[in-house]
Amino acid sequence: MPDSKLHWEDFITGAVTVYGPRLVTREEIVAFAAEFDPQPMHLDEAAASATLLGGLGGSGWHMCSLMMRMIADGFVLNSTSMGAPGVDEVNWLKPLRPGVRLRLRATVLETRASGSKPNVGLTKFKFELLDDADAVVMTQVNTMMFGRRAPAGAA
Amino acid sequence: MPDSKLHWEDFITGAVTVYGPRLVTREEIVAFAAEFDPQPMHLDEAAASATLLGGLGGSGWHMCSLMMRMIADGFVLNSTSMGAPGVDEVNWLKPLRPGVRLRLRATVLETRASGSKPNVGLTKFKFELLDDADAVVMTQVNTMMFGRRAPAGAA
Repeated sequence: MPDSKLHWEDFITGAVTVYGPRLVTREEIVAFAAEFDPQPMHLDEAAASATLLGGLGGSGWHMCSLMMRMIADGFVLNSTSMGAPGVDEVNWLKPLRPGVRLRLRATVLETRASGSKPNVGLTKFKFELLDDADAVVMTQVNTMMFGRRAPAGAA
Repeated sequence: MPDSKLHWEDFITGAVTVYGPRLVTREEIVAFAAEFDPQPMHLDEAAASATLLGGLGGSGWHMCSLMMRMIADGFVLNSTSMGAPGVDEVNWLKPLRPGVRLRLRATVLETRASGSKPNVGLTKFKFELLDDADAVVMTQVNTMMFGRRAPAGAA
């Protein structure tokens, strides 16, 4: 029986998949900020209205963390993922507003075999968080490691 | 009386400051992972020992979030920070282990005036999270916006 988990070979350059939605509440935004990013613009409407956010908006790191959860539920937990060495770039384009229903658009930018590990392949993604109006709230480019169905040299 | 908050002019290229320590418990690692990154390597010692982490290690996004809190307590909450447009790069170099006491090393890489906003300056930082043995667990490069003491053209 074939392994139903997603392997490196299953990610095709140019493929686009959309995950979600994920509702984000004011309570979540304030709880995350209180623990990790207690700047007034993430905690309090009145203080936030005087900032560049123009009203309460979640921490950029909250966006990243929510995106990770959507990636995990979307495909990582059903894959041979071995994690990621880091992130190439993160762009916070719009505020994370209470009540938004986020969707995640994942585009496969590139795939390549590992140069050193024959059973590992690398997949470079562009991830975009979208709001209810399809506006892009955050973009991220990062490369993840996946196990291969067929190790290099075994074909 | 001069404003005691840190302004853009107070960040000098080449300056290095170390903040912390911040103890990270197993409970925190598992709680963050359960909410945002429920991969087995972040939740369970036995599952983690079979992965590249070689034992329980926190989510990379937990490292980023903890770093944000250390930055906030270290200087951002006592500054004219206006946030950041994004992150240039994140590198996860070593696992985040339960019981580690993290320190944060902040290096000012570059400062420049905003081209469009006379009362805003940009400061580019390299941030490094260090473990108890001074090994670098994570690096990050990002640019933050700060209010200026003296707007451009006012000198």
